[in-house]
Amino acid sequence: MGQFNSAPERPELARLGHVALETPDLDESLRFFRDTIGLQETDRTEDTAFLRSMYDTEHHTLSLTETDTAGVNHIGWRAQRPEHLELFVDQLEKEDIDVSRLSAGEERGQGEAIRFEAPNGHPFEIYYDVEKPDPQTEKESQLKARRVSGDTLVRGAPTRLDHVHLRDRDGAAATEWLEEHLGFQVNEFYRNKGKRWGTWLSVTPQPHDLALSTHEDTGDSDGRAEQFHHVSYRVETEHDLFAAADRLRENGYKLDAGPGQHAITEGKYLYMREPASDIRLELYTGGYLIFDPDWEPIEWSDEDIGIAGDHQWIGELDERMKPTIPY
Amino acid sequence: MGQFNSAPERPELARLGHVALETPDLDESLRFFRDTIGLQETDRTEDTAFLRSMYDTEHHTLSLTETDTAGVNHIGWRAQRPEHLELFVDQLEKEDIDVSRLSAGEERGQGEAIRFEAPNGHPFEIYYDVEKPDPQTEKESQLKARRVSGDTLVRGAPTRLDHVHLRDRDGAAATEWLEEHLGFQVNEFYRNKGKRWGTWLSVTPQPHDLALSTHEDTGDSDGRAEQFHHVSYRVETEHDLFAAADRLRENGYKLDAGPGQHAITEGKYLYMREPASDIRLELYTGGYLIFDPDWEPIEWSDEDIGIAGDHQWIGELDERMKPTIPY
Amino acid sequence: MGQFNSAPERPELARLGHVALETPDLDESLRFFRDTIGLQETDRTEDTAFLRSMYDTEHHTLSLTETDTAGVNHIGWRAQRPEHLELFVDQLEKEDIDVSRLSAGEERGQGEAIRFEAPNGHPFEIYYDVEKPDPQTEKESQLKARRVSGDTLVRGAPTRLDHVHLRDRDGAAATEWLEEHLGFQVNEFYRNKGKRWGTWLSVTPQPHDLALSTHEDTGDSDGRAEQFHHVSYRVETEHDLFAAADRLRENGYKLDAGPGQHAITEGKYLYMREPASDIRLELYTGGYLIFDPDWEPIEWSDEDIGIAGDHQWIGELDERMKPTIPY
Amino acid sequence: MGQFNSAPERPELARLGHVALETPDLDESLRFFRDTIGLQETDRTEDTAFLRSMYDTEHHTLSLTETDTAGVNHIGWRAQRPEHLELFVDQLEKEDIDVSRLSAGEERGQGEAIRFEAPNGHPFEIYYDVEKPDPQTEKESQLKARRVSGDTLVRGAPTRLDHVHLRDRDGAAATEWLEEHLGFQVNEFYRNKGKRWGTWLSVTPQPHDLALSTHEDTGDSDGRAEQFHHVSYRVETEHDLFAAADRLRENGYKLDAGPGQHAITEGKYLYMREPASDIRLELYTGGYLIFDPDWEPIEWSDEDIGIAGDHQWIGELDERMKPTIPY
Repeated sequence: MGQFNSAPERPELARLGHVALETPDLDESLRFFRDTIGLQETDRTEDTAFLRSMYDTEHHTLSLTETDTAGVNHIGWRAQRPEHLELFVDQLEKEDIDVSRLSAGEERGQGEAIRFEAPNGHPFEIYYDVEKPDPQTEKESQLKARRVSGDTLVRGAPTRLDHVHLRDRDGAAATEWLEEHLGFQVNEFYRNKGKRWGTWLSVTPQPHDLALSTHEDTGDSDGRAEQFHHVSYRVETEHDLFAAADRLRENGYKLDAGPGQHAITEGKYLYMREPASDIRLELYTGGYLIFDPDWEPIEWSDEDIGIAGDHQWIGELDERMKPTIPY
Repeated sequence: MGQFNSAPERPELARLGHVALETPDLDESLRFFRDTIGLQETDRTEDTAFLRSMYDTEHHTLSLTETDTAGVNHIGWRAQRPEHLELFVDQLEKEDIDVSRLSAGEERGQGEAIRFEAPNGHPFEIYYDVEKPDPQTEKESQLKARRVSGDTLVRGAPTRLDHVHLRDRDGAAATEWLEEHLGFQVNEFYRNKGKRWGTWLSVTPQPHDLALSTHEDTGDSDGRAEQFHHVSYRVETEHDLFAAADRLRENGYKLDAGPGQHAITEGKYLYMREPASDIRLELYTGGYLIFDPDWEPIEWSDEDIGIAGDHQWIGELDERMKPTIPY
Repeated sequence: MGQFNSAPERPELARLGHVALETPDLDESLRFFRDTIGLQETDRTEDTAFLRSMYDTEHHTLSLTETDTAGVNHIGWRAQRPEHLELFVDQLEKEDIDVSRLSAGEERGQGEAIRFEAPNGHPFEIYYDVEKPDPQTEKESQLKARRVSGDTLVRGAPTRLDHVHLRDRDGAAATEWLEEHLGFQVNEFYRNKGKRWGTWLSVTPQPHDLALSTHEDTGDSDGRAEQFHHVSYRVETEHDLFAAADRLRENGYKLDAGPGQHAITEGKYLYMREPASDIRLELYTGGYLIFDPDWEPIEWSDEDIGIAGDHQWIGELDERMKPTIPY
Repeated sequence: MGQFNSAPERPELARLGHVALETPDLDESLRFFRDTIGLQETDRTEDTAFLRSMYDTEHHTLSLTETDTAGVNHIGWRAQRPEHLELFVDQLEKEDIDVSRLSAGEERGQGEAIRFEAPNGHPFEIYYDVEKPDPQTEKESQLKARRVSGDTLVRGAPTRLDHVHLRDRDGAAATEWLEEHLGFQVNEFYRNKGKRWGTWLSVTPQPHDLALSTHEDTGDSDGRAEQFHHVSYRVETEHDLFAAADRLRENGYKLDAGPGQHAITEGKYLYMREPASDIRLELYTGGYLIFDPDWEPIEWSDEDIGIAGDHQWIGELDERMKPTIPY
């Protein structure tokens, strides 16, 4: 954060920026994300709706594009500095990773960007220039850190994009790649039966901007083990988790799991899927922040939590948590 | 946060580390901070008690030393890297600021450190090496990010040190010095009748690790306008603000102000003073985080909030908020 | 509640039913009570809007009628049984109190009713037959105890009508009359400087359905000391008090007081006034219930709370709390 | 509640008073109910500990007696008036139900009482005279409606006894008996596959003081289908449900289910069992109150909630919820 950062030798990511989803039924997906969850629609093109929540500072943190099949088009990360884009290109191409380039405006509200597949196919985008909502305009809140009007928010509405969770055939290897090439820091990890099962990584003081878990069984997704598990938005309190669950049930949606609390990250959660795209959303509150420059990753084993086969602290996850979105 | 940070040309602070208070009655101050507020006593020397809360990762975030008069001995900041200590010394001595050195262990739980007065007398300390509680020991929580047992926590107990608020004869000049010499970033500021009245600065993604407000009137403190206004700890929800207020009242303490919400930082607050030392504590929840590398400071004027002479959003501050601790 | 109640010798009230307000600007009053506070409009006649909240079981709990001047038309109480109406008439006429009669439907959604002035002019209504919202209709919630759709509720919206607070030149005498003629039970009272200042009464297990405080000074209301101080709706948590305050501020409304907590009734509060009518609303949460058949009234003196001139537990009331609505 | 109640022709219950449990390990049961859950121990005899929570107005609401095997000794109900005890005796003896009498003091803190088995063996007690904690004594709270010091309460501690849930071979018949002989009112009921599965009854404005569900399978309890399912205490908010769950987990206890929300009664819940006695406790918040004298019971069918085989609104109950305590 400090203003004294000299130009780094290696490029860095500043934050998770947005997730671009594809849905076979845009209207139905908007009924979920906008009308029920309470994200605010901020822009629209012919086939794409853009949404954000109260403290999201960019043009959008979620886009929904109507396509034939559901999926994740890309996960957008903002670079720490403008000049980092080219440094990332250099670095990725040395690894023989194909990098495609987008010119300014090709993605609504965004400047130049690069896109590439992280190992095993996770679709990443990196950009720096981005359009920001002007908090001074008439429609916005009197509280200037807010980018949507608090007045329009429904009960339990999210306040900001928090993190993504991906699944990978080889979570340990994918984690190493993210540390080495994109500068992620490992904050917590979990060994299940002696093997690294999951890793929680960040480029910010959050315990995770990205979680990566291992998914060896390729049977359920046409042999594509690499999957998008969920996107997570933050709500303010446990009361909001219940208020959101209530709105979801009143609107005919089912829940996947929760309310509950993870042992890892200590976040309190509610999981559900948007039926048209089958994409999973987590609403999330609590947790902690890491300000130590020498944070030692927290290691968890099966014995630590004391419930065999699970790593929840309060509540449990079950079979309904399994289906996810292959790319 | 990223691991690719090259060695910076200029030293940086990683975080607010602790506040060292002096009190004429240690037992009475412990009745407040430990027995009522719910900080946990982690160590004790002959004249000093050390305390921390649930997610505080260092030996202590608050120390209470019994002395003849109440006061603030120093405000401790942790450097981003070990080698930054000497870089800070160089930089401060170029400004003709006296820097004193502490050897390892001179302050309990802490390695080498430097101390100096920021302009107008604010007593700062910078250190890197610090003893950390081992989350694996028997007394600690099963949730490994916690550094005290959640089981021992009372209703409304704080979860981590959040920020300090200082007052200065010339807040605008002091702010510039903090930006230039210690690398603070200005996140929000407030002009009262055209003049910079207050500034909210940070070295982390928090909207403030340090707030600095202008206090021209020197009449109330032996001509020393430079003052410590309050130290702030975070609680989890609005319910905790009420639970803490309840405990305070049951134990015979009065409140200064709140519960309420600031427009600036959007934090929800409760203020009170510890009677033996007259030092003010804020309990704080909510707010937002700044992950943008190009954050534009939010500017507030009197007209913005719409309540003349005040900048609160919910609730009001009054005369009781005035008395503070000169150094 | 039990089903074995034999026909009582004396009539009883079952509950506070509704408050009928008059406003010089119906649209503006609806912007407050419906669009900002989140009561739901359930019916409308030419000059009157009817509103209720989530668990209100009758046609309305608040009506707003456009008239030349603001005021309280009446406070409606539901009788315990149909035959109690005539028993109340007999009882009141023995006291030489004028009783007027309304035929069924004269007040929208309501059967036969009687109206009269309690001593010193408080305008009361008693009815038994009332139209009830059908929880099975399409618009309503899937949760059948709810009478409005939870889905439509805004952040911090009330869940039910709770109580009214009246002011009286002689609160002690008025209290005695309410006990003797309408069957109210005294649950708590407060002596200020040796004199009964306020009384909290109920016909249900709530600590108060009606509070009555003493207001000797007739200077501010054309010599009419008898006043309506506020109507109170319940919200679910402290978080809702803040969420409601937030919505009010975003919509340009000021607050009178709070968030805070009363010592008496232990309710947590937020006070504000609707600008067009100047009528005060309290949002209220917490408190306790009385199931003991032999409850001893709680007596409070100035010394009990320990803050001279006030009886709040957390937070304070101030000058802004004074103006009220004379009948 | 009203003071005009004439002497009824038939006796009435005022409230659920207490539950008397038997445990094979009193120390271990106290570690759960007192040290972890946060009930306050108020009295002790050689073999029995007595506990209550913040707003419980009697000597105790839970007793724990050390015996060879776990069980429920009795469920105590307070009569509406002193003279109702003999009226209940007359009524029960007409039904050929054996009634035993306790003299004053035989149960600590209680006057004369009667005990009998409701059909199918539910062990009930009725009393009127009971010792009440004096809120004015030194140990108690400054808030006079509280019967334990708020200062001593741990995070998530209960605030009052709420209800009991019993299981019966023939829940429909048992319900009718409770309506006819003890004056309970049916507030909600649930038909599973066309048959009355559960009923929620009260003698107060709560949606249930007693729930009764059908349990036909006698295989798991020595042929005794009649069982005690759980005792329920109220906490204040959803945050408290999580805080209590946290304390339970830190102290090595497992949870049975929750946090979640029932469709019926709308209460939010957390379930767990005390390991020594295997008795289940529910922590409970939210819900609604019934002030209508003509409340129509809410009827639920499987289709209403939309989740086959379950009647939860948020979260789910599972196999772990089955084991209960036969008398």
